[in-house]
Amino acid sequence: MELVFISIGLGLLAIIYGFVTSRQVLGASAGNEKMQEIAGAIQEGAQAYLNRQYTAIGIVGVVVAILVGVFLGMIPAVGFVIGAVLSGIAGYIGMNISVRANVRTAAACETGLQQGLTIAFRAGAITGMLVAGLALLAIAVFFYVLVGPMALEANSRTVIDGLVGLAFGASLISIFARLGGGIFTKAADVGADLVGKVEAGIPEDDPRNPATIADNVGDNVGDCAGMAADLFETYVVTVGATMVLTALLLTQLGDLLMPLMALPLLIGGACIVTSIIGTYFVRLGGGTNVMGAMYKGFLVTAVLSVPLIWFVTQYALGSVGTDMNTVLNAGTGMVEFTGRDLFYCSLIGLILTGAIIWITEYYTGTNYRPVRSIAKASETGHGTNVIQGLAISLESTALPTIVIIAAIIGAYELAGLIGLAYGATAMLALAGMVVALDAYGPVTDNAGGIAEMAGLDESVREKTDLLDAVGNTTKAVTKGYAIGSAGLAALVLFSAYTADLNAFAEKLGLDVVDGRAAVNFSLENPYVIVGLLLGALLPYLFGAMGMTAVGRAAGDVVKDVRAQFKEKPGIMDYSEKPDYARTVDLVTKAAIKEMIVPSLLPVLAPIVVFFVIRAIDGPASAFAALGALLLGVIVGGLFVALSMTAGGGAWDNAKKYIEDGNHGGKGSEAHKAAVTGDTVGDPYKDTAGPAVNPMIKITNIVALLLLAALAH
Amino acid sequence: MELVFISIGLGLLAIIYGFVTSRQVLGASAGNEKMQEIAGAIQEGAQAYLNRQYTAIGIVGVVVAILVGVFLGMIPAVGFVIGAVLSGIAGYIGMNISVRANVRTAAACETGLQQGLTIAFRAGAITGMLVAGLALLAIAVFFYVLVGPMALEANSRTVIDGLVGLAFGASLISIFARLGGGIFTKAADVGADLVGKVEAGIPEDDPRNPATIADNVGDNVGDCAGMAADLFETYVVTVGATMVLTALLLTQLGDLLMPLMALPLLIGGACIVTSIIGTYFVRLGGGTNVMGAMYKGFLVTAVLSVPLIWFVTQYALGSVGTDMNTVLNAGTGMVEFTGRDLFYCSLIGLILTGAIIWITEYYTGTNYRPVRSIAKASETGHGTNVIQGLAISLESTALPTIVIIAAIIGAYELAGLIGLAYGATAMLALAGMVVALDAYGPVTDNAGGIAEMAGLDESVREKTDLLDAVGNTTKAVTKGYAIGSAGLAALVLFSAYTADLNAFAEKLGLDVVDGRAAVNFSLENPYVIVGLLLGALLPYLFGAMGMTAVGRAAGDVVKDVRAQFKEKPGIMDYSEKPDYARTVDLVTKAAIKEMIVPSLLPVLAPIVVFFVIRAIDGPASAFAALGALLLGVIVGGLFVALSMTAGGGAWDNAKKYIEDGNHGGKGSEAHKAAVTGDTVGDPYKDTAGPAVNPMIKITNIVALLLLAALAH
Repeated sequence: MELVFISIGLGLLAIIYGFVTSRQVLGASAGNEKMQEIAGAIQEGAQAYLNRQYTAIGIVGVVVAILVGVFLGMIPAVGFVIGAVLSGIAGYIGMNISVRANVRTAAACETGLQQGLTIAFRAGAITGMLVAGLALLAIAVFFYVLVGPMALEANSRTVIDGLVGLAFGASLISIFARLGGGIFTKAADVGADLVGKVEAGIPEDDPRNPATIADNVGDNVGDCAGMAADLFETYVVTVGATMVLTALLLTQLGDLLMPLMALPLLIGGACIVTSIIGTYFVRLGGGTNVMGAMYKGFLVTAVLSVPLIWFVTQYALGSVGTDMNTVLNAGTGMVEFTGRDLFYCSLIGLILTGAIIWITEYYTGTNYRPVRSIAKASETGHGTNVIQGLAISLESTALPTIVIIAAIIGAYELAGLIGLAYGATAMLALAGMVVALDAYGPVTDNAGGIAEMAGLDESVREKTDLLDAVGNTTKAVTKGYAIGSAGLAALVLFSAYTADLNAFAEKLGLDVVDGRAAVNFSLENPYVIVGLLLGALLPYLFGAMGMTAVGRAAGDVVKDVRAQFKEKPGIMDYSEKPDYARTVDLVTKAAIKEMIVPSLLPVLAPIVVFFVIRAIDGPASAFAALGALLLGVIVGGLFVALSMTAGGGAWDNAKKYIEDGNHGGKGSEAHKAAVTGDTVGDPYKDTAGPAVNPMIKITNIVALLLLAALAH
Repeated sequence: MELVFISIGLGLLAIIYGFVTSRQVLGASAGNEKMQEIAGAIQEGAQAYLNRQYTAIGIVGVVVAILVGVFLGMIPAVGFVIGAVLSGIAGYIGMNISVRANVRTAAACETGLQQGLTIAFRAGAITGMLVAGLALLAIAVFFYVLVGPMALEANSRTVIDGLVGLAFGASLISIFARLGGGIFTKAADVGADLVGKVEAGIPEDDPRNPATIADNVGDNVGDCAGMAADLFETYVVTVGATMVLTALLLTQLGDLLMPLMALPLLIGGACIVTSIIGTYFVRLGGGTNVMGAMYKGFLVTAVLSVPLIWFVTQYALGSVGTDMNTVLNAGTGMVEFTGRDLFYCSLIGLILTGAIIWITEYYTGTNYRPVRSIAKASETGHGTNVIQGLAISLESTALPTIVIIAAIIGAYELAGLIGLAYGATAMLALAGMVVALDAYGPVTDNAGGIAEMAGLDESVREKTDLLDAVGNTTKAVTKGYAIGSAGLAALVLFSAYTADLNAFAEKLGLDVVDGRAAVNFSLENPYVIVGLLLGALLPYLFGAMGMTAVGRAAGDVVKDVRAQFKEKPGIMDYSEKPDYARTVDLVTKAAIKEMIVPSLLPVLAPIVVFFVIRAIDGPASAFAALGALLLGVIVGGLFVALSMTAGGGAWDNAKKYIEDGNHGGKGSEAHKAAVTGDTVGDPYKDTAGPAVNPMIKITNIVALLLLAALAH
C-alpha cells in the first residue's frame, strides 16, 4: 500500500507544480487595456461555451451513471462519476489558464521572444501536469479506497469493474469534449477564414471580423480543454487497463500482486517528476529555434525517466523481496517475464514516443519534403494543393504504423501482453510533458490574435508567429502520440475483453473448453470478418459526421458574419464594432447540437452489433464479432486518425511556409491555394481525426461493460 | 466434361456477339473530315500508349513468368502467360473499339439521342462481352486441357497451381494497366484543366489546349483498357478461386467433383446469354432518361439470370444423377449445403450487385442529397467544397459495407465458404453487363470532346453531355462492384490460403495438430494484429503513391502546355496548331515510369513481411502474420477504394450539377470551387481508388504462390 501512497504523493506534486506555476503566469503583466478587453471577450466566450458544454454532457452523464449503477452496481457508478468529473476539471482548469496566459504571452513578446516562450510554455505545462497529476490521482486514490478502507481484494471483480467504470467516465466526457470543442474551434476558424480572408479580403484575426473572437475562443475550448480531456482519458484507460490486465491474467502472483498492480502508478509518478524537471529545460539559449527548445525539454524528461523507471521497478519488486531477474509470472502459461523485461518494455514505450514525435515533425514541419511538396503543389492551384495534401496524409501513416508494429513485436517478445501494457503505460507516463508541448499551441495562437487585434507593433506579431509556427507540429504530435498508444494498447484492451469472456463464460451462456469460453476469434470465422469490417467502418462514419458537422456549423458562421456586415456597414471602416458575442453564441449552440449524435455512435454500435448477431447466430458468434469489432475499430481508426492529423498539420504549415515568402508569399495564387488546403485540413486535424482516439476507447470500454452487464 | 464444353461454347458466343456488334458499330458514319482527323489523333495516341505500356509490362511479365516456371513448374507458368496475354487482349480490343466508336457516337448524335446511345452503348457492350467471354474461355479451355488431354485429376495440385498461375497473370497485368492507365488519364485531365480552364480561361476540350488530345486518349487507355483488364482479372480470380476452393475443401465429392468444379463456369456462361439479351433492352423509349435505359438493360439481365442459374445448377447436378435437395458435402465437417442452397447464394450475389449499383447511384447521382450537398457547399468556396466532398466520401462506405456484411452472413449461413464463393461468382457472372455500362462512359466522354473540337452544332454537344452525365455514375458502379466482390471473396481467398497451409504443413516446417497446420489465426495472437495493421497500411501507401504520381505527371503537363503557349503564341487565335503528340508522348513516358514502383508494392510486401517475421519468431508466426495481412489489405482496402471511387464520382457530378445552372451555374464562384473538387476527385476515383482492387488480389495470389514455392 506504501507504493500507492508514493504515487498519490507524486500526483499531488504535479498539482502543486500547477498551482505554483499558475501563480507565476498570472503574476505576469496582462498588457494594456485594449489587450485586456479582447482577452476578456475570449475568456467570457470560452467560459460560456464550457459551461453549456458541461451542462449538456452532465445530462447525458447522469443518465449513463444511473444506467451503470443499475446494471453494474454502485462502485462502477462511483468510478464513472469520478472519471467524468476529473476529466471535466482537467479541461476546465487548463482552459482557464490558457485564456489568461494568451494575453500575458502577447505582452511578454513586447519584451522578448524568450519571455513570450516562458509564459506560453509554462501555461502549457500547467495543463500538462494537471492532466497527468489528476489522472494519476484519480486511479491511485480510487484504488486505495477500494483495497484499503473498503478492504476489497486487489484483483476482485468489484475493483476491476470500478476501474473500468472510471475509464468509461473519463472516455465519455472526453469524446464529447473532443468533438464538441473540435466542432466549435473549426466551425469558427473555417467560417472566419471563408468570409474574412476569402470574401472580405481582410487578414486573419482582423478585429473587423465578427467571427474572430469565436475563432480564438475555439483554440481554447478545442485545442486546450478538449485535448486535455482526451489525454486524461487516454492516461486513465491505459494505466487502468494495465492494472486490470495484471489482475485478470496473472492469477498466481501471491505477494507480488499488490506491487505489480501499483507499479504502473509508480511509473506514472516517476515521470511526473522528470516531466517537471524537463519543463525547466525548455529554453532558447540565445537563438530562435523554438522547436529545438521544446526538444530539449522532452529529451531531458525522456532520458531522466530511464533510470527513474528502473529505480521504481526495482523498488516495487524489492518491497516484497523480489529482484529484477526473478521470473514474475512463473506457471501462468504466458510468455515469462522478469522485472528487467518490464523495464525494457517501458523503454520501448519511451522510444516509441520519441519516434512518433520525430516522424510527426518530419511530416508537419516546414523544413522537410512533405510540407514543402504541398507548398510547391500550391503553385499549380487549389486542386493540386489538395491532391498533394491528401497524398501526404495517406503516406504519413506508414512510418508510425511500422514503429508501432516494431514496438508491439518487441514488447510482446519480452513480456507478452503485460509487456505491451507496460509499453503503453510508459508512453502515457510522459503525458505531462507531451500535453505541455501541445497546450502551449493555443496560447501562442491566441497571443498572435490578440497582438493583431490590439494593434501592437509588427515585431510582436512576428515573435508570436515564430512561437506559433511549431504549434501545428506539437498539436499533431499529441494526436499521433495518443493514437499510437491506442495502437499499442489495442491488444491489451482486447485481452481484457477475452479475459472477461473466459471469466463470465458460463453466465453468458457460452460453452467452456479447457477453462476458456468457446468463442472462435480465428480469422477463419466469418463473424470475425464481419466484426472487423464493422469496426473499421466506425471511424469512417464518425469522421464523416464530424466533417459534415463542421461544414454545417461553418456555413452558419458565414451567414451570420455576412449578415453583420450588412446590418452594420460601419464595421469595415472601424466606425462600428461587430457583435462578437452573437457569433460565439451561435457557434456554441451549433457545436453542442452537432456533438451528440456522433458521440453516441461508438457507445451504441457495439451494443447493436452484439444483439443483432446474437439474434442471427447465437452468443458465440456475437461475442466473436464484438471482439473483432474492437480490433477493427483500431485497425481502421489508426489510419484514419494518423492520416487526418498529420495531413491537416502539413496543410497548415504549407500555408505558413508560403507566408514566410516562399512560392510567391502572401497574396500570391499559391497562397490562395494553400489557404484552401489549410481550410480542408482544419476539420481533419482538429475535429474528426483527434476524436477517433476516444472513440476507439469508448467502443472497447462499452464492450467490457456490456459483458459485465450481461453476466450480472 | 460436357459441362465444360457448354461453358466454352457460351464463352465463344460472347466473342461472336462482340464480332457481329463491332461490325455494326464500325459500319456507322464516322462523321466529317475534321472529326475523323481528331479521332485519328486520339486513336494514334491511344495505340502508341498501349504499345509502350504493354512493352513495359511485357518485360516485367517475362521475368515473372520465368520465376513462376522455376519455382512452381511449367503449368503454372503457362497459366500465368495465358492470363497475362488474354487480360492484355481484352483491354486492347476494348480500347480499339472505343477509339472508333467515339467519333461515330458524335456523328450519330447529329441524328438523335437514341442513335448516339445505341452506338455508344453497343461499343461498351462489345468490351463487356469480350471481358466476360475471354475470361470464361481462359479458365474453361485451360481447365479442359489440363483435365482432358493431359488427363490430370481435377483436384490435383497441378490443376490448382495452374489456375492460381492463370489468376496471377491476369492480376499482374491488371494492376499495371489500371495504374498506368489511371495515371495517364488523370495526369492529362488534371493538367489540361489546370492550365486550360484555370490559367488560360478556355473551356474543356478546347482545341487550342495542347493537352486536350492527351485527355481524350486517357479516357480510352484508363477508363476503357485499364478497366477491362481489371474486370477480366476480377472475373478470373473469383471464378478460379471458387473452383480451387471446391477442389481443396470438398475432398469427398466422388462423382460430384467435376460438375461442382464446372458449375461456376456454367453460371458464367448462362449470364453471358442473359447479358447479351439485356443489351437489347437499353433503349430510351422516347424520353431522355439515359440512366433509366441502363437500368432496364441491367434489370432484364439480372432477372433472366435467376431462372437460368437455377436451370444450369439443376442441369450440372443432374448430369451425375443428383437433385437440388441432396446434401452435396456430407461428411466434410463443413456447413452442409444442397444445390438449392448454392442457387440461393448465387441469388445473394445478384441482389448484392443490384444493391451496390443503387447505392452508388445514390452517392454519385445528381438527384440525391450527397452530390447536392457538395454543390451547395461550393457556394462558400473551394475549402467547403472539398470538406463536404471528403465527408461524403467517408460516409459513402457505410451502406456498401453493410450490404456486403449482410451478403457474407447470408451466404455463409446457407453454404459456408462455398456459399460465399458462389455469391461472388454470381456477381462476376454479370460482368458482361456491368462492364458494358462502364465502357460506355469513355466513348460518350470522347464523343463530347470531338464534338467540341470539331465545332459541331451546340445541340450535338448537348446530346453527348446528356449521354455522358450518367458516365460518372456508371464508372463508379463498376469500381464499387469490383471492390464489393473482393469483399465477398475475401474469406474465399483467405480459405484458399489456409487450405494450402494445411496441405503443405509438413513441407513448410509447421507442426500439425488434428490434421491442420499449427498456425494461430486468432485475434489474440499479436502477429495477427501485426499482419492486420500491415495489410491495412498497404492501400494507404499505395494510394499515396498513386496520388503523388498523378500530381507529378500533371505538373509536367502544365509545364509543357505553358511552354507550347509561349513557343507558339498563335495558338490562342487559332493561327497555329498546338503539338498534341508532344503532350501525349510526355504523359505516356511519365505514366509508364510512375506505374512501376507502386505496382510492385503488393507483389513484394507479402514476401518481405513473411521473411522478416520468420526471422524474428519462426514460421508459425510468419504464416499467421501473412494470413492476417491478406485480410488486413481487404479490411483497409475496401474502405479506401469505396470512399475514393464514390467520393470522386460525387465531386465530378456536383460540378456537372452546377454547370446545369444550379448555384449560379458555369463561371460562378461556386463553379470554380466545384472544379477544384472535381480535380481532387480525379486521381481519387480514376487512379488510386480503382487500382486497390487488383492490389488486393495480387497480395492474396502472391501469398498463395509463396506457399507453393516454399513447399516445392
